[in-house]
Amino acid sequence: MTIHMNLGGDSYDILVQRGILSSAGQHLNLNRRVLVVTDSGVPAEYAETVAAQCRNGIVCTVESGEASKSLDGFGKLLQTMLDHGFSRKDCVVAVGGGVVGDLSGFAASAYMRGIDFYNIPTTLLSQIDSSIGGKTAINFGNVKNIVGAFYQPKKVLIDPDLLKTLPPRQISNGLAEAVKMSLTSDRELFELFETGDIEKNLDEIIIRSLNIKKNVVEQDEKETGLRKILNFGHTVGHGIESSEGMSELYHGECVALGMIPMCGENIRPRVIDVLKKCGLYRVLQYDWDAVTDAAFHDKKADGDTVTVTLVSEPGCFELRTMKCLDVIEAAKKALEGLKD
Amino acid sequence: MTIHMNLGGDSYDILVQRGILSSAGQHLNLNRRVLVVTDSGVPAEYAETVAAQCRNGIVCTVESGEASKSLDGFGKLLQTMLDHGFSRKDCVVAVGGGVVGDLSGFAASAYMRGIDFYNIPTTLLSQIDSSIGGKTAINFGNVKNIVGAFYQPKKVLIDPDLLKTLPPRQISNGLAEAVKMSLTSDRELFELFETGDIEKNLDEIIIRSLNIKKNVVEQDEKETGLRKILNFGHTVGHGIESSEGMSELYHGECVALGMIPMCGENIRPRVIDVLKKCGLYRVLQYDWDAVTDAAFHDKKADGDTVTVTLVSEPGCFELRTMKCLDVIEAAKKALEGLKD
Repeated sequence: MTIHMNLGGDSYDILVQRGILSSAGQHLNLNRRVLVVTDSGVPAEYAETVAAQCRNGIVCTVESGEASKSLDGFGKLLQTMLDHGFSRKDCVVAVGGGVVGDLSGFAASAYMRGIDFYNIPTTLLSQIDSSIGGKTAINFGNVKNIVGAFYQPKKVLIDPDLLKTLPPRQISNGLAEAVKMSLTSDRELFELFETGDIEKNLDEIIIRSLNIKKNVVEQDEKETGLRKILNFGHTVGHGIESSEGMSELYHGECVALGMIPMCGENIRPRVIDVLKKCGLYRVLQYDWDAVTDAAFHDKKADGDTVTVTLVSEPGCFELRTMKCLDVIEAAKKALEGLKD
Repeated sequence: MTIHMNLGGDSYDILVQRGILSSAGQHLNLNRRVLVVTDSGVPAEYAETVAAQCRNGIVCTVESGEASKSLDGFGKLLQTMLDHGFSRKDCVVAVGGGVVGDLSGFAASAYMRGIDFYNIPTTLLSQIDSSIGGKTAINFGNVKNIVGAFYQPKKVLIDPDLLKTLPPRQISNGLAEAVKMSLTSDRELFELFETGDIEKNLDEIIIRSLNIKKNVVEQDEKETGLRKILNFGHTVGHGIESSEGMSELYHGECVALGMIPMCGENIRPRVIDVLKKCGLYRVLQYDWDAVTDAAFHDKKADGDTVTVTLVSEPGCFELRTMKCLDVIEAAKKALEGLKD
């Protein structure tokens, strides 16, 4: 299955195919110097499988976790390319989750002002979301993704077989973004979550999610308008994720919680049922001051208002500019009332 | 005088006008948070004049010199924006030479994946060359400009009055790039250098140089082809500049030397006369091994050949792929023979 991302001169194909990792060299130009970036949480054989298909593959393994998405981590990749004499005609391949993709994509964008970048996402979250769309970034000064570039990959290979080694909680983490996209843009996908077998339908979930994201990104590559719907649940979600004491939670778990207050009350029971089914439901104690600071000291803040996405029915969204404090009030009301 | 750089969605105007610094706020949107970046070698009143026209101007002064174009310097600017709560709608203004423009342009490109960037170049070199064209960069691992982004400014203000405070050697430094552009692309400008009064014709030299660069950049924004002619003299020039023991020389002085071997022998006497007139002629002792290493361990190397620009007559260029070592042999032959 090929999905074509149509972005003019920056267009590229997303290939979804079980087992494609082992034939990566047939789809990517690896006949050159290739920096294969992975992290310590990804089975080492994935990056090795890619490196074995390169003329001159150099595997660079960063520590698993957000801490690698730093200015230091960025410098480390650049230094590795420099040490190996990379020219403008060489390339970078990410083999990992969002951390690896975001970090190595930014390094590829900056080395010699941009060399080819390929992404082979290995987590569900990155397969359905972060590997496409061209947003690369590192964290800086405790703010997530505050520094980076819009830089499109030349190709993305998605191999659902790689998910077999993923812990169930990481599958849930990815499902959160798929649920998010179903809520804003695909009623049928939401109903599949409600009534279908998630594991058996994983390929369809991936492909439907990719198609939603493709349509949004094609209309708004640089996130000046429509692309904001991909941030559905993320304003409050980021606040929860970045606030102190919440560092145990995964991104998708926080986004899942962040979606609840942004859904109409009439559909919240259905949304909560889906989140439970996906392993994404949590009842927490919140430090709302910390959540507020974290949510609005980031790039989504604009004066004291923020544009959020609201969903009244699965598949129907509305962008609304709200006062930041009203967003927090809504979150408080919706999330404090949740029961185990 | 307005020169329009036509780059589709990334188009912008270059305004050339004596005294424009004091009315910058009429031409740029400074009604927001503005990071005004300058360096310790630029008269402080230039940045202060700009900051006084901003709603919320923050002046950041980096150390004068290439050492500021580092990953640390990049981090320092990002941290300053973060500390002052910059959003996507705020902007960066460079008030300085190429170091300031390259560094702050790269920071603007990366902060939140890109905020508005304005350039007010204060040296002749940056007024005629580095401030337009969208190449931003820092140095890394002792390699110049190896990390950066193609990122166009939203507007460039060029105030030739600012050059009054510039030491003569810095004027010469800028003239080197103008001589370079005249040699590849503008016979009349070269003849002006031969026969005219340079100081009296400075505005015309600036405007003609900007128009040459504009035409080249419009045809090849990302430096995949024609833009290579802007590197005329730079392969050998970079080698001289980056080799040990040459750190006393300015960029333009090195480029001037680098052009000599790339000119046809018949025109070399004329070129040398112009370089002398511009204060750019030097007789040096070269460490050719160091020059070779420095020239070809950079981004212009491609295997063991390199594409260089040759000039047989002023205004006529040829791109030629040569063996790296042949380039060095030509440089040796041309430069070792120079006399005081």
